[in-house]
Amino acid sequence: MKVSSGSTVAAWRRWLPTLPVLQWGRQYNRDTLASDSVAALIVTVMLIPQSLAYAMLAGLPPEVGLYASVAPLLLYALFGSSRVLAVGPVAVVSLMTATALGDLAAAGTPAYAGMALTLALLSGLILLAMGLLRLGFLAHFLSHPVISGFITASGLLIAASQLKTLLGIPAQGGDFLALLRSLLAHAGQLHGLTAGVGLITLAFLFWCRSGLKPWLVRLGLAPRSADLLAKTGPVLAIALTTLLSWALGWQAQGLKVVGPVPQGLPPLTLPAFDLASWQPLLLPAVLISVVGFVESVSVGQTLAAKRRQRIEPDQELVALGASNLGAAFTGGLPVTGGFARSVVNFDAGAQTPAAGIYTAGGLLLASLFLTPALAHLPQATLAATIVVAVLSLVDFGMLRDTWAWSKPDFAALAATLAGTLLLGVEAGLVLGVALSLALFLFRTSRPHIAEVGRVPGTEHFRNVQRHTVQTSPRVLSLRVDESLYFANARALEDRINDEVASRPALAHVLLQCSAINDIDASALESLQAIDQRLQASGIQLHLSEVKGPVMDRLQRSRFLPGLSGRVFMSQYQAWLALAPDAA
Amino acid sequence: MKVSSGSTVAAWRRWLPTLPVLQWGRQYNRDTLASDSVAALIVTVMLIPQSLAYAMLAGLPPEVGLYASVAPLLLYALFGSSRVLAVGPVAVVSLMTATALGDLAAAGTPAYAGMALTLALLSGLILLAMGLLRLGFLAHFLSHPVISGFITASGLLIAASQLKTLLGIPAQGGDFLALLRSLLAHAGQLHGLTAGVGLITLAFLFWCRSGLKPWLVRLGLAPRSADLLAKTGPVLAIALTTLLSWALGWQAQGLKVVGPVPQGLPPLTLPAFDLASWQPLLLPAVLISVVGFVESVSVGQTLAAKRRQRIEPDQELVALGASNLGAAFTGGLPVTGGFARSVVNFDAGAQTPAAGIYTAGGLLLASLFLTPALAHLPQATLAATIVVAVLSLVDFGMLRDTWAWSKPDFAALAATLAGTLLLGVEAGLVLGVALSLALFLFRTSRPHIAEVGRVPGTEHFRNVQRHTVQTSPRVLSLRVDESLYFANARALEDRINDEVASRPALAHVLLQCSAINDIDASALESLQAIDQRLQASGIQLHLSEVKGPVMDRLQRSRFLPGLSGRVFMSQYQAWLALAPDAA
Repeated sequence: MKVSSGSTVAAWRRWLPTLPVLQWGRQYNRDTLASDSVAALIVTVMLIPQSLAYAMLAGLPPEVGLYASVAPLLLYALFGSSRVLAVGPVAVVSLMTATALGDLAAAGTPAYAGMALTLALLSGLILLAMGLLRLGFLAHFLSHPVISGFITASGLLIAASQLKTLLGIPAQGGDFLALLRSLLAHAGQLHGLTAGVGLITLAFLFWCRSGLKPWLVRLGLAPRSADLLAKTGPVLAIALTTLLSWALGWQAQGLKVVGPVPQGLPPLTLPAFDLASWQPLLLPAVLISVVGFVESVSVGQTLAAKRRQRIEPDQELVALGASNLGAAFTGGLPVTGGFARSVVNFDAGAQTPAAGIYTAGGLLLASLFLTPALAHLPQATLAATIVVAVLSLVDFGMLRDTWAWSKPDFAALAATLAGTLLLGVEAGLVLGVALSLALFLFRTSRPHIAEVGRVPGTEHFRNVQRHTVQTSPRVLSLRVDESLYFANARALEDRINDEVASRPALAHVLLQCSAINDIDASALESLQAIDQRLQASGIQLHLSEVKGPVMDRLQRSRFLPGLSGRVFMSQYQAWLALAPDAA
Repeated sequence: MKVSSGSTVAAWRRWLPTLPVLQWGRQYNRDTLASDSVAALIVTVMLIPQSLAYAMLAGLPPEVGLYASVAPLLLYALFGSSRVLAVGPVAVVSLMTATALGDLAAAGTPAYAGMALTLALLSGLILLAMGLLRLGFLAHFLSHPVISGFITASGLLIAASQLKTLLGIPAQGGDFLALLRSLLAHAGQLHGLTAGVGLITLAFLFWCRSGLKPWLVRLGLAPRSADLLAKTGPVLAIALTTLLSWALGWQAQGLKVVGPVPQGLPPLTLPAFDLASWQPLLLPAVLISVVGFVESVSVGQTLAAKRRQRIEPDQELVALGASNLGAAFTGGLPVTGGFARSVVNFDAGAQTPAAGIYTAGGLLLASLFLTPALAHLPQATLAATIVVAVLSLVDFGMLRDTWAWSKPDFAALAATLAGTLLLGVEAGLVLGVALSLALFLFRTSRPHIAEVGRVPGTEHFRNVQRHTVQTSPRVLSLRVDESLYFANARALEDRINDEVASRPALAHVLLQCSAINDIDASALESLQAIDQRLQASGIQLHLSEVKGPVMDRLQRSRFLPGLSGRVFMSQYQAWLALAPDAA
């Protein structure tokens, strides 16, 4: 929320976390209450299985997922700038949590759970700091190819990691290939009952996504409510399989179930506060924060735009930071804004963040009264819900699209995808970011420099290689299609050196600067060097169509006074002055 | 030397080191012989003190400097693409050598000299590899502010390091401040005679630079020969002080002299070939190679341009690589093309690299017959020649100029300067490069986006904040003055979100793309997201003045078919179509 007044108070406010609740709270009335509570009910029902499953994916007891969906939702409702974003455990962040903690402790142990809290604390602090320092823009250096490569790879990793639970195969393995190999190796030990429950649930959930909605519509339901009803498929699956496993005593037959879940409020917990235990978790916390922030903001922006609302990236950082701190002190795990749940919340008609508060209430009740019923819930069912959820993240189409659009982008995408699958989530992400930055620098260090000539009878100038144009042996006209900075200034020097050496009759070099948006000190130095060398060999350097801001700064510099040639308003005027015979 | 023909042989040749000697060798005749030998004589006389001094600066015995000026000159003459570049020990590279070896061995020991050979071998291999792989462009990432900050800091470091020898004060210290502190602390132990010789020589050499030339001109000498004669000042100083110290037995009075110098040809030496001894020298070797290459190429290009000749950066890499390998196997130290000696060579009328061959011959004779005379040469004299030489590198004016031109460039310059002085040459250089890249990325991540309006009665569109222009509440026209890529695409999204949220009547968003030279996959994704969000709120997105190459790729993408609005040839046509009432 921008502060319009320039008063010192306002200036101060810019640097304090603002409270959007003060805005929407004032206009709260019965209508918003109604629509918010309906949305909250639907989201609650959807969140119960999700939060259980993602806690399990992170290697934590299922109830942790419920805990992590209460305090974070409340805190986001206070600080968040999105009206409909739903915060809690999400697949990718849970996977990153599992990878971060995997080497430090054994999943399921109290030490492991404690580190999850510390991880939440750290990423909370990092997000908060980024928000207060207005560092939201740093997330922009995560390029889209890197993100989509990372998300797809994560989806595959998660799906693979769930297969062993889904099929009851005692497999393990760090990276993707190791996991698949181990699955095939132990395929013989597949547990029939588990596999049966898992695969049937899987089939049912896929049908819910594809087949159920049209079927409900044919039964006469309104498309929107049919859609929402279809989304309750996972709850149905959980209820049914839990009931069956309890009635038929599946656990006795070797089917893994969730087992006894403590009943009660989210516990008050204290994460570790010593640097020794922070140090190994710092890099993972940074990556989790950035990835979570990027995912959350893109969801939020997409939904906000649909109602011509907007969200403040820096405010989102504060809100997500607060949410993670909340999770850290109430027995949770790192959280962020989830895609599926936010869309459901939006479609269900949530008007204000109050919907989030009601949802938190719903999950609180669930953790109070529902937990005993979860004891017999087959883990294979949860695995199935995870697989169905994450396979929607996997998108190979963008490989083809990106290849078609640009090879460097494809390289960044492929590197991130392969790196994440084979080297791990953190290495893959870092590799992708480094590569995409390097490729960008490399690209800009090779600017497109076109020799231009006059389109006969017009005032237009075009690339001599693309069009048939007038040129003069005495004038060399070059158009640089890039801002000039240290990495590409030398390329211009080299190009001009080449051209001059091969044109004995040359008397004028004319740079058309229409696409030069900036000139840094190195480039200015190069221009001076070029001008001096040209003077030394009796050639004049001229500029044309220099942009306003660039011209302002050139006039303050020592370059213009020493320039051998002139600065022309338009390329055509320059042409008339320098090649009168040809004109 | 470009290979014009496209034959496979030619294609092969591009990847083999070419031999420029085959070019100039053919046209060699008596005239070129005459002018080359005159130049060679003058350069030899100048190089003798320089090479002794720079070897001492690198912490090596003086004769090493002579050795390092023979083989490298010969090899450069064969492979170099510059006609006049003179290769040998230079101040900055010698300083970097001293810093690299300082922590690994004690100066003056055989181990130390051995490592200098290994360092030369490594940087030779690195330069050769860069040349054959056509990686010359990597040097462009050393921005001009970083280079000048580094050179100035090096000049100060070298001058400070010579003060103790110049004044006979037993001082030492790693970084600049420690050195000065130690000098002041031990000022009391100043050795009168040494200080006298040092300071008088210093004064004489400064006078040679400033006062001697005009004086000679008044005596009736031609300016050019007066200039060349003035450059022989150091030789005069060395001859005189050596004679005096021998005649008056200064050594007995505690004046440090060079001492016995072995007489003979450069020895054949074998640098270390085991990775264990390579490992600690690798980073220094990389930095020495890049810095040496940049210095050498900029000198070469400046001189070549004066005769409308040109040099091939990648060929230069091969030549400098060969030169350093030569130094490594003939008892030398890392070398590169020097500024002062090349300029003298040029002014003295050198026509071809043959001048370098004759110079090598001259220095060979010097190391054969002159060395005994050097025994009584006071070290203070050499220190004085170094101080005078390097103070010409120090340039504080560029601090002011860079500040005036651009603050980010100034930041990079100041960081490199301070870093090199206080953290050391390697840390300072790395810091500078990292900072300048980060600042460039930061700058491009905040593109200049101007809202434009129509200049009444014209077809021109200008920034609404700079000019009084026509606008329409239904149309928002934005001009992005930067190529769109992952780091700045989000900034455009945010800007448009803001504008839309604050303009209820808005029906069209029009992007003027005249300055957009490239759109990467992330930016394309952002444009699609922008379009979808605008559509969701009933607004159309239009483009105008899209560049040819960008348009080609947009037409291959999925963006245009889905675009809610149109693509206009010119901003004016768009304006006529979208705001007919205002037009």
